[in-house]
Amino acid sequence: MPYVNIKITKEGATPEQKQQLIEGATKLLQEVLGKNPQTTFVIIDEVETDNWGIAGESVTVRRKRGQ
Amino acid sequence: MPYVNIKITKEGATPEQKQQLIEGATKLLQEVLGKNPQTTFVIIDEVETDNWGIAGESVTVRRKRGQ
Amino acid sequence: MPYVNIKITKEGATPEQKQQLIEGATKLLQEVLGKNPQTTFVIIDEVETDNWGIAGESVTVRRKRGQ
Amino acid sequence: MPYVNIKITKEGATPEQKQQLIEGATKLLQEVLGKNPQTTFVIIDEVETDNWGIAGESVTVRRKRGQ
Amino acid sequence: MPYVNIKITKEGATPEQKQQLIEGATKLLQEVLGKNPQTTFVIIDEVETDNWGIAGESVTVRRKRGQ
Amino acid sequence: MPYVNIKITKEGATPEQKQQLIEGATKLLQEVLGKNPQTTFVIIDEVETDNWGIAGESVTVRRKRGQ
Repeated sequence: MPYVNIKITKEGATPEQKQQLIEGATKLLQEVLGKNPQTTFVIIDEVETDNWGIAGESVTVRRKRGQ
Repeated sequence: MPYVNIKITKEGATPEQKQQLIEGATKLLQEVLGKNPQTTFVIIDEVETDNWGIAGESVTVRRKRGQ
Repeated sequence: MPYVNIKITKEGATPEQKQQLIEGATKLLQEVLGKNPQTTFVIIDEVETDNWGIAGESVTVRRKRGQ
Repeated sequence: MPYVNIKITKEGATPEQKQQLIEGATKLLQEVLGKNPQTTFVIIDEVETDNWGIAGESVTVRRKRGQ
Repeated sequence: MPYVNIKITKEGATPEQKQQLIEGATKLLQEVLGKNPQTTFVIIDEVETDNWGIAGESVTVRRKRGQ
Repeated sequence: MPYVNIKITKEGATPEQKQQLIEGATKLLQEVLGKNPQTTFVIIDEVETDNWGIAGESVTVRRKRGQ
């Protein structure tokens, strides 16, 4: 019964891509640890680029510089 | 000084229902462990059904099938 | 399919008390929002008192003062 | 490579204030533990006042009372 | 710069299995969303079976029943 | 009433350093957003180096290489 939380910046992930993340994470836990997919939860959090910082600055600022 | 985080799918919980969750969780910690309600935090996260997966598929897909 | 995370300081909660937290939180989600207990997860984190701060000081320090 | 998650109520924090939180948290980890800012993540979650409870009631209710 | 948190029950996952989870989750984010592996974090939490509940009971109790 | 969660690798942070993190994070929220220190929570998680991955490998492996 694993629980997987994936946090990404909110930059246009589609429902299809999210479905691929859900499937892939569920399969990973099944393959590596034999976990039952029926009780595997995957929750995706999409975080505004203003609210995500790395190296002391927001992703919004980094994106403006082309990073 | 407990901290309780409740994650549910975003499917129309009302402010009154959220208040009931806050009250109920606070009371539970008080009754079971004698925790002081004054310093009990409850945070509710409502997650889009596209972003919540179980058994390898999103809740959006499951809801379409009537689950 | 709710997910509930309860964080408390590590100060001797027994397996029976943890079971009461699990039951109580599961029941709360069922009563307030009609959530299915079969797919309700409850995860309890017990945090060392050195690692939990409130009002700018650790719980270890507060406990020494009798709080 | 620390990870810092800051949860605050959604009550109008500006991008500049968020940038200050990101900078301040990154600097704190560097000063206290010598952590490399390049691999320090800071994620800010802004939570609706209906969804944050303290002392058994939502912040929405508390704000109406002037707290 | 994704962040992935995997919670599993503490039941003997080896360092090799954890390494596989880290690699697999990092690769998944790269393949689905083109995320840079260099700034992908994966954190694995191993939770005592007394502290993980599903369907209103702890995993400890479920394991005793053979589930 | 902010909540701050700091995750670091478990590599010998002392109670004094943890206290500095608690004080620093509490002060940061007070200075930037005027938050009341009395209701600011800081929780520090120390994660085993086997359980923390970056760039597709565990910190244990990275430390062996001198990173």
